[in-house]
Formats: sequence, C-alpha cells, structure tokens
Amino acid sequence: MKYCQSCGSTVNICIPSGDNRERYVCISCGDIHYQNPKIVAGCLPVWEDKVLLCKRAIEPRRGYWTLPAGFMENEETLEQAAARESVEEANASLENLRLYTIISLPHISQVYMMFLADLNNTDFYPGVESLETELFSEEKIPWEDLAFKTIDTTLQNFFIDRKKGAFPLHSSVIEMKNH
Amino acid sequence: MKYCQSCGSTVNICIPSGDNRERYVCISCGDIHYQNPKIVAGCLPVWEDKVLLCKRAIEPRRGYWTLPAGFMENEETLEQAAARESVEEANASLENLRLYTIISLPHISQVYMMFLADLNNTDFYPGVESLETELFSEEKIPWEDLAFKTIDTTLQNFFIDRKKGAFPLHSSVIEMKNH
Repeated sequence: MKYCQSCGSTVNICIPSGDNRERYVCISCGDIHYQNPKIVAGCLPVWEDKVLLCKRAIEPRRGYWTLPAGFMENEETLEQAAARESVEEANASLENLRLYTIISLPHISQVYMMFLADLNNTDFYPGVESLETELFSEEKIPWEDLAFKTIDTTLQNFFIDRKKGAFPLHSSVIEMKNH
Repeated sequence: MKYCQSCGSTVNICIPSGDNRERYVCISCGDIHYQNPKIVAGCLPVWEDKVLLCKRAIEPRRGYWTLPAGFMENEETLEQAAARESVEEANASLENLRLYTIISLPHISQVYMMFLADLNNTDFYPGVESLETELFSEEKIPWEDLAFKTIDTTLQNFFIDRKKGAFPLHSSVIEMKNH
C-alpha cells in the first residue's frame, strides 16, 4: 500500500497512538488502513466412497488437484461461501454442510474453513477456475499432486475419521512457506 | 474507497472480466481491490462457577459488557488472536483454549470465533479498552447490558451446555442490524 484509499495522499507506516503495531497511516487525512487475515471457505464433497477434487485452471498451483474453496466474500455466511465456491469451481450440488477443518496459516494471514458435505448427484462439471472435476476413492487420491497442504490435511483427516466412523471438528495450524 | 492504494488514481466500481461481482478497480493501473470479511476472535474465560466480562471503554457500545474479543491481526493464528485480545482487554492469563462458538454476521461482513478458556488466576484487570473487568455467576450476568448479540449467544450456549456437562462447537448465523 502506497496511497490512501480515502484521499489519495501518501501513506506512512507507523504505530498509531493507542495502538501497539505498525499500520498504514495517511500523512494527510490521518486515516488508518488496517489489514486483516482472509477466510478461505470450501467443501469436501462426498459421494458414496469417493470425494470430489478439482484440477486447478488458475495460478497458484495450476494443474494441481484441490478441494473447491476460495476467499469468503463480504455479506455472506461461512456456509454460503463454502457452497458458492463448490458451485463456481465444480458446479457441485451439495447438502448437509458441517464444519470440519479449521486451519490457521499465519505466514500468509489466512484461515481455512472447510465443510464436509454430501453430493446430491454426480452432475458436477468444471467451472472456469477448474480444468477437470473428478471423484476419487482413497486409493486413487493424487497425494503427490495436491495443490495445498491444507487440502492434504483435510483429506487425511477425512480418511482417518471415516475408518473410525466419526467426523469431529479439526482445528490446527500450518506454519510454512509452501502451504 | 475512492483512490487506488497502489498508484493513487481514482477507482471505479465495476465487475472485472472473469468475475461475477462488483469490485473497486483502478482506472489507471487496473489493480482490483478486493474486500473480504473480518474475523473477530475472543474468549469466554471461566473461573470456578463464574465467567469474566469486560465493560467496554470504547465505542461502539461503550459502557456495555462484553467478552474479550477483537479483530484478528495478520500473521497470527486464531488461538493467538483470542489469547492476545484477552490480555489486551482484561490482562487475563488463560489456558486450555478450545474453539466453542462460530457466528457469521453477513450484514457487517464479520465472523466471530470464540474460544472457551480456563482462567489461570484472578489477577486480571482492565486494559485500556476496558472500564472494568469482573467475574459473574450465571445469576448475575447483566443480560440487558451486554454489548453485542454474539456475546449474548455465546454466554447462553455456555450456561445451557454447562448444565449438560458437554461443550460442543456451536456454529450459527446472526442476521440483523444491531448485532
């Protein structure tokens, strides 16, 4: 950030009065421009003994497999965001969404919120951000070609929990450069 | 937002190519300035049969009672954010944080993430954003003077769950003008 979005003047980095960390502060109007973590909401869509993955058509990690997920938008709920992303990336019709994996990624200031969900049918197909959409059994998961560590973690949780027959909420932290 | 934070030129509101909703887009450099929901992280600190509340020293809702909570900052985890807010607002020493209440507030583009936590001692005292910090038993909770509906919901969940002896995660939505 170089310029104030309120008045167009230059911003400085300084600790505002009464604060305890550096912020972008306008040298002219004094507006403080806070920056906060973003939520990535998505789903783990399940059909019989398989799960739905999407091959990414966009960077980062174009060509790698992921679960449908993306940045939560203003004026929506977590569940709406997760369902919307599943439609946008895979045209997936889902029901019974339940929060399943929460992962803080402090090095990139993101929090993943992944929902377990039931596919209503197999009429899914790639949205513009996906090259392919496909159901995978546990044995066929392309573990070496997953896009992000968050997706790997969510899928690993799922296959372990499925053997136990219970899907409790998993809350964790991933701290690394390549998530 | 009126000006581009990258180049200082005017921004327009339009739907970028390949997108499906209105964004702030710079008429000069073309930068797209996304806006996303913010996470409010906090704690419900418990000491014996009582919970710790803070009387707000700042607007909005100055003079009303709340649980320690505030905007999650970049480069921290959910749990770190919740613990930090509890120190900043109440100098509360906490342990055993477990995620307890998640509330989407789409009308103000916020998601509350409240942790149940054990107070290590009663050496808490008000931080600069609090006028008072005090332990309340269920009978003494100032229900009519709580700052936000999210706090009311979290406390109600707690006292109901305590009678049942189990504290499952509660995920909900509050849609109203005065949360």
